Amino acid sequence: MKEDILTKIPDIDYREAAPEIDDKEFDKVIRSRRSVRVYRDEPVPEEVIHKAVEHALLAPNSSNLQPWRFVWVKSPQKKKELVRACLGQSAARTAPELVVALARTKSWSKVQKEMIHVLKENDAPKGAFAYYEKIVPLAYGQGPFGLKGLIKKIVIFFRGLLKPTPRGPTSQADMRVWAHKSTALGCENFMLSIRAQGYDTCPMEGFDEVRVREVLGELGQEKGSEVCMIFSVGKRADNGIYGPQVRMKKEDFFIVI
Amino acid sequence: MKEDILTKIPDIDYREAAPEIDDKEFDKVIRSRRSVRVYRDEPVPEEVIHKAVEHALLAPNSSNLQPWRFVWVKSPQKKKELVRACLGQSAARTAPELVVALARTKSWSKVQKEMIHVLKENDAPKGAFAYYEKIVPLAYGQGPFGLKGLIKKIVIFFRGLLKPTPRGPTSQADMRVWAHKSTALGCENFMLSIRAQGYDTCPMEGFDEVRVREVLGELGQEKGSEVCMIFSVGKRADNGIYGPQVRMKKEDFFIVI
Repeated sequence: MKEDILTKIPDIDYREAAPEIDDKEFDKVIRSRRSVRVYRDEPVPEEVIHKAVEHALLAPNSSNLQPWRFVWVKSPQKKKELVRACLGQSAARTAPELVVALARTKSWSKVQKEMIHVLKENDAPKGAFAYYEKIVPLAYGQGPFGLKGLIKKIVIFFRGLLKPTPRGPTSQADMRVWAHKSTALGCENFMLSIRAQGYDTCPMEGFDEVRVREVLGELGQEKGSEVCMIFSVGKRADNGIYGPQVRMKKEDFFIVI
Repeated sequence: MKEDILTKIPDIDYREAAPEIDDKEFDKVIRSRRSVRVYRDEPVPEEVIHKAVEHALLAPNSSNLQPWRFVWVKSPQKKKELVRACLGQSAARTAPELVVALARTKSWSKVQKEMIHVLKENDAPKGAFAYYEKIVPLAYGQGPFGLKGLIKKIVIFFRGLLKPTPRGPTSQADMRVWAHKSTALGCENFMLSIRAQGYDTCPMEGFDEVRVREVLGELGQEKGSEVCMIFSVGKRADNGIYGPQVRMKKEDFFIVI
């Protein structure tokens, strides 16, 4: 096998041992996280949101390009407008706090440059530089009018006839999937973290994206940036959860081959 | 305000209290989850994977339509082929186990029917039926050649001039974003759960999707189903993590307005 950046195990001294964890506590976080639609009229300490965002930003993400942004809409006027953009739904209307998660398809090139800078400072192996200097722009760049993506698609097709070849992203539509996917990984960390800290969330997709962008001002107008989901945050009211959690039978969703 | 399914707080007797949680354990899960690229040659107990998938399936997801599927590729022959489709990368090659997460854009209508069935059995309020019987097919159906989606887009544009209106999904491209987003929420649960149980993962996007689908056989050919990511699972080798976790400065990704 020809060795490359993916297959070669680099000769690095770094060691990071895993701590002991009480997984019963984790199980409680997962099982007690429910979408809460009515909140108590009780404030959320600022540090709870800050810690949850820190946890969100530690999620794995595609090539570590961190294509996400979390916007905490604290201003009472903007929050009121955001509730309206969330169709006035109870999960937003009764919530002490609202946070918008944005998925960004174009911010990766800035992070790419920062990554190269970090690698330089840390005397990283050659392969890592090659990855960020050559592979990343090739993989994620789609060019003007998506032309680079189109050319990639053709080259990939023929190369793929001969050997295993990554198939995308080769379009702006693929980049949307790409950005939302990584952002959602962060979003799940956010929600679980809020739960672990004794508070609740509801992830919302029922909103008017045009109006949400208006509420966010410049942040909402960033090119290639889309609203991934909006969280409400607070403490569940007694009637905050509308019923037991429903999931269809596991065999439909988990298959061993 | 006119009351509807989203805004109205239903009169339900259900109560679900939150348990006390030691959030230091959760913090350890988040911080010790690293993408592991070299694994020890040590098996993963079956129940670890089973529990992680159970946790994945408890993630929040869009309208509870569960557009995901997790495929554990256990067969040694298939696993070998899957490693090749993952470009032979060390994270796959050295891993005791591989699990493929699929995002599904067309399975929602089956779950929709099952949800209506569950609601009937539980004497759910009218609004919930209306949601699954009317709103769900309207929201997620795109029609032949995406025509329904196109009509929705036009109607939404004009309605949106007058009042807050959800803007999508109105195309198959939107449905891809939709399915991958919910699937990624489940994926994060999976990875954190594996970590909480003392094992490690690497989420991979560097793979040949055409070949991965071939390995999955019928499951890979399901219409509207795409590979979201592939996990390797195992115990980190001493040299399994290539360096300290790098994140760019928080102020770029977390903004308070």
